[in-house]
Amino acid sequence: MARTEISTLGEFGLIRHLTKDLKAVQPSTCKAVGDDCAVMDFTNAKAKANADQRVLMTTDMLLEGIHFNLEYVPLKHLGYKAAVVNFSDIYAMNGTPTQITVSLGVSSKFSLEDIEALYSGIRLACERYHVDIVGGDTCASMNGLTISITCLGVAKEKDIVYRNGAKLNDLICVSGNLGTAYMGLQLLERERMVAQSYPNGNAPAEALRFEGKEYLLERQLKPEARRDILEALHKAGVKPTAMMDVSDGLSSELLHICSQSGVGCCVYEDKLPIDFEAAALAEEMNLNIVTCALNGGEDYELLFTCSLDDYEKLIPIDDLYIIGHITKPEYGCNLIGRNGEEITLKAQGWNAFQD
Amino acid sequence: MARTEISTLGEFGLIRHLTKDLKAVQPSTCKAVGDDCAVMDFTNAKAKANADQRVLMTTDMLLEGIHFNLEYVPLKHLGYKAAVVNFSDIYAMNGTPTQITVSLGVSSKFSLEDIEALYSGIRLACERYHVDIVGGDTCASMNGLTISITCLGVAKEKDIVYRNGAKLNDLICVSGNLGTAYMGLQLLERERMVAQSYPNGNAPAEALRFEGKEYLLERQLKPEARRDILEALHKAGVKPTAMMDVSDGLSSELLHICSQSGVGCCVYEDKLPIDFEAAALAEEMNLNIVTCALNGGEDYELLFTCSLDDYEKLIPIDDLYIIGHITKPEYGCNLIGRNGEEITLKAQGWNAFQD
Repeated sequence: MARTEISTLGEFGLIRHLTKDLKAVQPSTCKAVGDDCAVMDFTNAKAKANADQRVLMTTDMLLEGIHFNLEYVPLKHLGYKAAVVNFSDIYAMNGTPTQITVSLGVSSKFSLEDIEALYSGIRLACERYHVDIVGGDTCASMNGLTISITCLGVAKEKDIVYRNGAKLNDLICVSGNLGTAYMGLQLLERERMVAQSYPNGNAPAEALRFEGKEYLLERQLKPEARRDILEALHKAGVKPTAMMDVSDGLSSELLHICSQSGVGCCVYEDKLPIDFEAAALAEEMNLNIVTCALNGGEDYELLFTCSLDDYEKLIPIDDLYIIGHITKPEYGCNLIGRNGEEITLKAQGWNAFQD
Repeated sequence: MARTEISTLGEFGLIRHLTKDLKAVQPSTCKAVGDDCAVMDFTNAKAKANADQRVLMTTDMLLEGIHFNLEYVPLKHLGYKAAVVNFSDIYAMNGTPTQITVSLGVSSKFSLEDIEALYSGIRLACERYHVDIVGGDTCASMNGLTISITCLGVAKEKDIVYRNGAKLNDLICVSGNLGTAYMGLQLLERERMVAQSYPNGNAPAEALRFEGKEYLLERQLKPEARRDILEALHKAGVKPTAMMDVSDGLSSELLHICSQSGVGCCVYEDKLPIDFEAAALAEEMNLNIVTCALNGGEDYELLFTCSLDDYEKLIPIDDLYIIGHITKPEYGCNLIGRNGEEITLKAQGWNAFQD
């Protein structure tokens, strides 16, 4: 494959090259790449009706060797994921993502083709979620790859869902399944070790045990943000009382919602949505799938609470699971095991500063 | 000095610690740190009057070993500068900075006290410029320090100044002086070499030749954004036709304005504002101060064009210099030397990908 050194373009040349045919789709984008700042008009078209329009902002930094391993993460997937995890934060406020800025720190080991692949993943995610790339910064780095994306979104004030609104007896719901992205990571790590036992790490395809486990890989490498769940809730007339996305693990997120809302919670082991493939691999690798579901992280599913009155409206929604309910704060945060035992939830989620 | 390992707090603990007593001062900040996103209300209070309100967004990434050398850059100054360079981009659109998010990647060589020092500089800049810290991301890194700041600002649509509005015969103006930050960097590098000749790099203070050169150091280590110039222009009733901040060097920025505006320019060597101390040091170090002024970068001064009709209004403004005028595009971009010779301007500014 061709290798073009980034130094042949320089910083401005690289930015021009990556952004040359970007087209804005959001009506709020007035001026994207090419000046000191991007310019947005969030009062667009019908200013009087938009007095309750709010702007949401979130940011996420991904560092090579900490958040991703390029031995098995394709750059296009990495770009896609880096964008989607930001969209997921906007959806977790019940908002709509509208613009991002993309900052890249790139060491000389990367070619122009590498950065094009990364950027194409970011652009694909933006196209799928109707988000505009409006700016960024691209610079050389001493070591590895740094990706920092900041995302803006919009929501009406009355629609925004914070973490602090959970009320006594509210239902606790989660979308999709839990622990699957973590099992995907375990699989990639296992097969990386296998590959390393071959000369230059070049294992023949048949030596790697990925077959039938494509879903686990997809969940780890190319997660999606659950816009569909928000649309279904909106259609059903349900507004969550508190919401987060599951990025650090269910336990950690539940503890955030409960502490900010001043409540306790009770979730049931047998209600946790667990993917069959993930469970099978956990068995094979001698891991406890419930622990993975509670603490695995990177699922990017939506975790929310809503009124018990909404129970009937929730039932028909596809891929949504009621896993427990909100309790008085003095009850604490507990998981009820299959045999009725009470286990206190702890945030054992991934802590990058302690490894 | 005490050294507390960051791992004793963990990621959430660190974020809580750094942001615990942040107070928002901008009326548009509804919700800062503590949820999936920050929430802003840019229609605040008088929605009907604000139909021409625009939101500006800019981002800047600083990487250790590329943009700064911690051998001589104090962390508090670094934090201050990292914030101010973003504010400078907002001012360069004739806007007002309002909120930032701060993402930090921190390797284990940094203690909690180090990160507190860095953050205190960011907070000081925010206080001085009335900007709120509304979010961010803090994570471990494999190597060194990464700082990524994204800044939002506001401006009325009619007030925004882009790079593409320069017109034939417009005056070209620049604030402050040029090349001084670059000479500050040269001084720091020179004295770093001196320090290295002592055991463990511990040179006695009298061995380092900083005396009388404090201004050069300040320009490099703790630049300010030129809010005062915008206020003076506003008061004088002058709206620039095109504007940028000088971050990559005057030549590079002039070429941006001219290419985006479809014009040429003519600037005069003897009109370039040059600081006396910077000129003296350049002489001492055998550097051409005009080359430094044209290509040095990091001055964070404002470069703008405005109508010839505004000439009388510009004269009384302190620390502002008229350095040339806009020409027809076929003339190109040229510097007229002291002896009348014409020199074509080239963007020789700092290119991080070519070192």
